Amino acid sequence: MDDKKAQRIRESFARQGLMETLGCTILHLERGKVTLEMPIGSAVSQQHGVAHAGATFAMGDSASGYAALSVMDESAEVMTVEMKINLIAPAAGRRLIATGEVAKAGRRLIVTRCTVQAEADDGSLRDVALLQGTMIPV
Amino acid sequence: MDDKKAQRIRESFARQGLMETLGCTILHLERGKVTLEMPIGSAVSQQHGVAHAGATFAMGDSASGYAALSVMDESAEVMTVEMKINLIAPAAGRRLIATGEVAKAGRRLIVTRCTVQAEADDGSLRDVALLQGTMIPV
Amino acid sequence: MDDKKAQRIRESFARQGLMETLGCTILHLERGKVTLEMPIGSAVSQQHGVAHAGATFAMGDSASGYAALSVMDESAEVMTVEMKINLIAPAAGRRLIATGEVAKAGRRLIVTRCTVQAEADDGSLRDVALLQGTMIPV
Amino acid sequence: MDDKKAQRIRESFARQGLMETLGCTILHLERGKVTLEMPIGSAVSQQHGVAHAGATFAMGDSASGYAALSVMDESAEVMTVEMKINLIAPAAGRRLIATGEVAKAGRRLIVTRCTVQAEADDGSLRDVALLQGTMIPV
Repeated sequence: MDDKKAQRIRESFARQGLMETLGCTILHLERGKVTLEMPIGSAVSQQHGVAHAGATFAMGDSASGYAALSVMDESAEVMTVEMKINLIAPAAGRRLIATGEVAKAGRRLIVTRCTVQAEADDGSLRDVALLQGTMIPV
Repeated sequence: MDDKKAQRIRESFARQGLMETLGCTILHLERGKVTLEMPIGSAVSQQHGVAHAGATFAMGDSASGYAALSVMDESAEVMTVEMKINLIAPAAGRRLIATGEVAKAGRRLIVTRCTVQAEADDGSLRDVALLQGTMIPV
Repeated sequence: MDDKKAQRIRESFARQGLMETLGCTILHLERGKVTLEMPIGSAVSQQHGVAHAGATFAMGDSASGYAALSVMDESAEVMTVEMKINLIAPAAGRRLIATGEVAKAGRRLIVTRCTVQAEADDGSLRDVALLQGTMIPV
Repeated sequence: MDDKKAQRIRESFARQGLMETLGCTILHLERGKVTLEMPIGSAVSQQHGVAHAGATFAMGDSASGYAALSVMDESAEVMTVEMKINLIAPAAGRRLIATGEVAKAGRRLIVTRCTVQAEADDGSLRDVALLQGTMIPV
């Protein structure tokens, strides 16, 4: 990704108040692929202490949206049309890592997929959620 | 809903750190139907100032989960198997109101639907998101 | 719905080879709401004799698409962007009835919901599937 | 996959009346991965002549279900809990090829993903749909 586009994504991400609230940050940017991370703690937990499906979804949605934005013309922004998440394991461990990717960049819509992994205290990774959704340029 | 079940839902909700982080609270509880509210502010925003899809999803997911819990035996808890959200209007205004309902309470799975509305400064309501998902007793 | 629009929907439906293959026909048309019916038989079954999820989906998708088309300008056609189905009971009985409705008619996208019911031999109806999806004008 | 399991899947598939109606057949079976094919013709078309979303879904759903069945104990059967499809290109060409795979085989639920491709007259392949869903043993 060229520096200008990366800079634009970082600035947009910095304006997402929810990402700051959740402690979510950018780990990696490339064209068509964006990785975010978020510490798992009480601020994002559900009633059993693991990350809430809403927190897992939020970072998956942002990773997907910025992956979509990364393949678009400079002037555009994107919004989520719809997004589906399957929770496949408890989001337990020290942090979550969400990797959003562009599955299809159409002229009017962009389809994305995202995998969210939980990193255990020993550094091992486990898939905890799969997302599939649609973004629209605005 | 009997007082004991209502109390149990309120205690479980109080342990969801994410709901506290987002400023989300319970507005109404009845058997098979749970309504939550959340102020729209910079803590839950996306880059344009309206509520982030992740915040809208999080409250919709919790409203759905507690609606499911409200129809179950006392001993159970539920987890989200999967959830899909369609964002149908910008989540702009002073607060969001999510109403989760049980569409089908099966023996092994509970299917839920949820509508999230945004309340404008003049008090008018507008649907902003529709969710449909599956909960599993744990 | 005016006669011209109804006629246009019937002609489009008649060109859907799959609907003829499945024995699916139009039961009711109104603005924003379309109901289809399909006999449950071996031609549309899965391995246990009830209707296949794919047959239930197909009629739900068509009911949703024509509901979307019914609220659009005369010149347009629609295509399915995405659709999600929850199967909530076995599709057993003598026929399926799918009612698709427009949940939100936007300028660029139309969001739909659909309920599919199975009619038992005694005429009683049971919800068997819920769909939620997105249509795009083409 | 051992011969007994493969035989069991073929027998179950042969009992799915809808697959015969659609002309859908098994192309490849392995543990956790099942590929089906279906000719694109007027019997499965929508109003513009390409394959109907319902036909694309039906084969994607069956490919996903048999992929799930392929990793389960011999006695089990599976049913679709829910399935979401994103249509990413028109299903045009001479045949569709659906490859379903197991994303997560849990004790109580199996999560699947499926890609459907269209084969053009020159033999080239193009992704036309992505599915993500949940199967349950019965």
